Amino acid sequence: MTAPDWIAVDWGTSNLRLWAMQGAGIVERREAAKGMGVLTSGEFAGVLEQATEGWPDSLPVVACGMVGARQGWIEAPYQSVPVAAAPHLVQVPGRRVWIVCGVSQNDPPDVMRGEETQIAGMLAARPDFDGVVCLPGTHTKWARISAGEICHFQSFMTGELFGLLAGQSVLRHSLGEPGDDAAFDAGLAEALAQPHRAYGRLFQLRAAGLIGTQDPSSAASRLSGLLIGWELAGAKPYWLGQEVALLGAPRVAALYARALAAQGVATTLADTEAATIAGLFRARQLIGDQK
Amino acid sequence: MTAPDWIAVDWGTSNLRLWAMQGAGIVERREAAKGMGVLTSGEFAGVLEQATEGWPDSLPVVACGMVGARQGWIEAPYQSVPVAAAPHLVQVPGRRVWIVCGVSQNDPPDVMRGEETQIAGMLAARPDFDGVVCLPGTHTKWARISAGEICHFQSFMTGELFGLLAGQSVLRHSLGEPGDDAAFDAGLAEALAQPHRAYGRLFQLRAAGLIGTQDPSSAASRLSGLLIGWELAGAKPYWLGQEVALLGAPRVAALYARALAAQGVATTLADTEAATIAGLFRARQLIGDQK
Repeated sequence: MTAPDWIAVDWGTSNLRLWAMQGAGIVERREAAKGMGVLTSGEFAGVLEQATEGWPDSLPVVACGMVGARQGWIEAPYQSVPVAAAPHLVQVPGRRVWIVCGVSQNDPPDVMRGEETQIAGMLAARPDFDGVVCLPGTHTKWARISAGEICHFQSFMTGELFGLLAGQSVLRHSLGEPGDDAAFDAGLAEALAQPHRAYGRLFQLRAAGLIGTQDPSSAASRLSGLLIGWELAGAKPYWLGQEVALLGAPRVAALYARALAAQGVATTLADTEAATIAGLFRARQLIGDQK
Repeated sequence: MTAPDWIAVDWGTSNLRLWAMQGAGIVERREAAKGMGVLTSGEFAGVLEQATEGWPDSLPVVACGMVGARQGWIEAPYQSVPVAAAPHLVQVPGRRVWIVCGVSQNDPPDVMRGEETQIAGMLAARPDFDGVVCLPGTHTKWARISAGEICHFQSFMTGELFGLLAGQSVLRHSLGEPGDDAAFDAGLAEALAQPHRAYGRLFQLRAAGLIGTQDPSSAASRLSGLLIGWELAGAKPYWLGQEVALLGAPRVAALYARALAAQGVATTLADTEAATIAGLFRARQLIGDQK
């Protein structure tokens, strides 16, 4: 095996992902369900030691994500926008472990932690990028990038809201697996054209199931379209007249690409894992040979 | 004890409420956590027998709520609008038990089950009522009443959505007990003035908590204001220029009264238990001495 010379870590709320790296190349990949959410601050060091067992000792470690939250290993404080999209780092005292700082915004209030690393990674490949990055997910982020800086950004709870409505609300009785593009498109168009009426359309998904006028698969696609349309209505200042770089898991990113294409907006799609690693590599370069 | 001559029942998803009645007067009240949600169709008869123990046998029983759903005791089919606001009844075969039918609407799709009985009860006291009834709750209903009929109605998931967001989403970390009227008013005004932007304001409640610019009590009141404002934006055709009769639990009804007053809309408030019983009494009168 090629000898790794540093370790990249994406340490989120639920999961811990690690890559033994040689420069920008992946030597080995590991994953564990040891997210920040189940750890106390004293446990991170031991979990990291265990997860990197067999890898050379004392390689520098660069980590992003919730590991740097107040309830994480050590707090890697938010950097306020406008901020250079290159990673800002905090070292864990006494260890060759660096954590990437999150980014915050005061007005309107917003925060990101983890996405800033993906944005840095994307910009490493496209240093002249001037436009908008959309990172669809549990809390979708829209960020305006210019001259290598994150200028401002906004989060939408679309992924989490879909999960709550489809999994825990009364709508769960009427929803199946999304699989109806026409229903997605219709929900999207209605929510975008009349966002003030989108809210009142939610319960209709249950009612239409009860009176037999909508099948579960269409209902799920329609809910997805309504929520993304609602988000696009609010995020219009971000995407209108812009090229949008999508950074997200393929399935959900494809929905956003479809939704934006319907508004005449061109998108490019980048892989999140590659962007995360590229962002962490950028951070690793900033550390250099620092002890 | 005055001898009861019939039994009123409100049999919902979670709870079973029973009143031994003499005419329009309550003789005794009982409650059990034996809602439709935990029963199979074969179990309703036994549960009713147990719950009415000690009351004279073979009194006529009139029930409303989810007991009449497809998954209930027997299905009391939806009556489609426009429909007379007087209760429509289905008798359980072989028993002196009658169940009030729900009301449905085809376009846009909507359903109610239980609220139609409260509306009938309110109209028994105000037979000439011509206006709008709002029943705040888990799934708030707005209904246009004219000439003794429910003309059309719309449901909003405000109560359920508040519960999911405050109890299960990432916002739960930043929300306390609502107690800040000014924050409620501000959220309400913002959502009503710019409903397309209200969606993007949800995550801000979490971010403002993290960067320390909003306390948990204000955040909860603000969420409540945003959701009710969002609902009022969608329900505007119902309340604009109307007098609104509120039928709901005092605490949540007071929020709607406050929100509507801010739009210059006068409201009256009626008690839901009294309305339910009055609606069931109206049904009981329709049955007469039928066996």
